[in-house]
Amino acid sequence: MSSDDPVLNSLRDSIDNLDAALIHILAERFKITQQVGAHKAQVGMPAADRTRESEQIARLRRLASDANLDEEFSEKILKFISSEVIRHHERIAEGQ
Amino acid sequence: MSSDDPVLNSLRDSIDNLDAALIHILAERFKITQQVGAHKAQVGMPAADRTRESEQIARLRRLASDANLDEEFSEKILKFISSEVIRHHERIAEGQ
Repeated sequence: MSSDDPVLNSLRDSIDNLDAALIHILAERFKITQQVGAHKAQVGMPAADRTRESEQIARLRRLASDANLDEEFSEKILKFISSEVIRHHERIAEGQ
Repeated sequence: MSSDDPVLNSLRDSIDNLDAALIHILAERFKITQQVGAHKAQVGMPAADRTRESEQIARLRRLASDANLDEEFSEKILKFISSEVIRHHERIAEGQ
């Protein structure tokens, strides 16, 4: 349902386009983290890797800063995604 | 720092590429939601819009389902992003 405000409708259309892009990138990211999880379970590596996680957060904070995105927000969202990924990995490892 | 596992390194490189894409899309999304926030504050609309939010969640669940992404995860992440956006809008409205 559209509002009767053309400015708001146009901005919301752009948000909807970007959200579709986010969903598809997240879907591809999960496909890859599932491969990581399966590989780790196969070779007996633990699901979580704190060193890798710290490096990812530092890198994303730099990228977020370059893109003028709130660094704290980008770190929170990465931690949220990572915690989901680790839960998936643990489930894969338990299934081995 | 790379691991000494070439399979893992290759998968992690792909994750890093996708994370950079996510950050840039989120940065663009925030640029637009800031415009929404400014517009809402200017015309005196409330920051939150439950109808719009429900429609977004329903749409994203469909997109996530088509992309084989966990629907519950996509809903959780949208709510997380939306709560950040609403906080931003409220700050913009307070500043008027």
